[in-house]
Amino acid sequence: MRWARVQLNGMPTYAVIEGDTVIPVRGSPFDAWERTSNRLPLASAKLLVPVIPPTFYACGMNYAEHVREVAEKVGQQPNLPTQPDIGYRANNALIAHGEAIVIPKEATDQVQYEGELVAVIGRKCSHLTRENALSAVMGWTIGNDVSERTWQKNDRTMWRSKNADTFKPMGPWIETDVNLESLVTRIRLNGRQLIEFRTNHMVFGVVDYLVAMTRYLTLYPGDVVWMGTEGATENMKHGDTIEVEINQIGSLRNSVVREA
Amino acid sequence: MRWARVQLNGMPTYAVIEGDTVIPVRGSPFDAWERTSNRLPLASAKLLVPVIPPTFYACGMNYAEHVREVAEKVGQQPNLPTQPDIGYRANNALIAHGEAIVIPKEATDQVQYEGELVAVIGRKCSHLTRENALSAVMGWTIGNDVSERTWQKNDRTMWRSKNADTFKPMGPWIETDVNLESLVTRIRLNGRQLIEFRTNHMVFGVVDYLVAMTRYLTLYPGDVVWMGTEGATENMKHGDTIEVEINQIGSLRNSVVREA
Repeated sequence: MRWARVQLNGMPTYAVIEGDTVIPVRGSPFDAWERTSNRLPLASAKLLVPVIPPTFYACGMNYAEHVREVAEKVGQQPNLPTQPDIGYRANNALIAHGEAIVIPKEATDQVQYEGELVAVIGRKCSHLTRENALSAVMGWTIGNDVSERTWQKNDRTMWRSKNADTFKPMGPWIETDVNLESLVTRIRLNGRQLIEFRTNHMVFGVVDYLVAMTRYLTLYPGDVVWMGTEGATENMKHGDTIEVEINQIGSLRNSVVREA
Repeated sequence: MRWARVQLNGMPTYAVIEGDTVIPVRGSPFDAWERTSNRLPLASAKLLVPVIPPTFYACGMNYAEHVREVAEKVGQQPNLPTQPDIGYRANNALIAHGEAIVIPKEATDQVQYEGELVAVIGRKCSHLTRENALSAVMGWTIGNDVSERTWQKNDRTMWRSKNADTFKPMGPWIETDVNLESLVTRIRLNGRQLIEFRTNHMVFGVVDYLVAMTRYLTLYPGDVVWMGTEGATENMKHGDTIEVEINQIGSLRNSVVREA
């Protein structure tokens, strides 16, 4: 099942997507809901960020090759994490499928994509076990963890390197039925494929993270956990189009513009 | 003017506090609102976290003496920040005035308070200037940035050292009328005063942070910015009561229990 959030009469509205049709609902996938009699063609629907998370979690450093690549770029030793220490991103930076990534005018040309699987939490939960952890996930979407590498290297935190406005595209929708082991992430810049990786071949998997996190914290409906990216990344520049595709989920596509 | 959020008929409700009286409103301080005819005695009101932020910002390392103290505790060189790089905390950890800080059973005894001034953002804004930055702040509250020092030292991120459930007491309410230069923060453990500092004597002040942040990010109504703490901090243990008082605002008081 495929959940989106769409703009309807000026209001954010949850909707089910079936084929090329958008079916707005009353309620939300995190609570009670029912289909309305309304139908929209998907092609003309304005897709919004599929969920605004109460807390926005991100793994970082969760694929072996990427850890080596980023360490080189930011001038540190490559160290594979030894435990699943979760990090954070910020809601101000979220944009939807189809919206523009805006490179701030003070940024260097080292602004790069990171294509990621995103787990969307469906219920309030703590102390998850390896057996029940995935039952807390209501579905899966796609994120692009856009990063300015010189700020990532030099600032004390990742506030502007990863959380400048528009640096966190997420979408296009949430897919509830996914086989993690058969997922493949493909990243394309202006249609040219740059990276392809087995999405679930992480240093610490979704279950590892959810079990570790919920020993100390409560997850809430709508929380998102971005699972990290693999491989080397390249610069994006004004006029580019960046696309992150994960089979079974969909394709998150955004244009890139530089602030005037 | 003093804004609180209270539990009323099972629902979170914004309210104005006048003396010992709580006056629930329709609406919120971030939008249109009007007083209801209801009146409650403050002593019997259940105060909630005064706002659930869309994004939860925190300065860290923003007072000179504290930078030296923490560096020693976590085994790093003390480096005063050279620019206002904002950080983040997580909503799962928020608790209200009067609620209990729960020390996880795996934590060491190095669980410590950090009393902080909190700026509450009142309107959507970006590209603030030194002249108009404070006009974006609708009011001020108090935060206690509870920290487990061994996790802060050893983990890759501050997820459980600073964001375990209950580690972010905030409240008791939001005070709109404050003279920053005359604020004094006092921290008391079981009634014994431990620290007293001039609240506004920061490495980077509120205006510095808001101007720097909004060059790259948009602030939204209800966002909070925790401004950091001063001085050495001590351990809290089961049975303790920790209190952070800032004159003109109020006093944030929480009990401490260790998870069984």
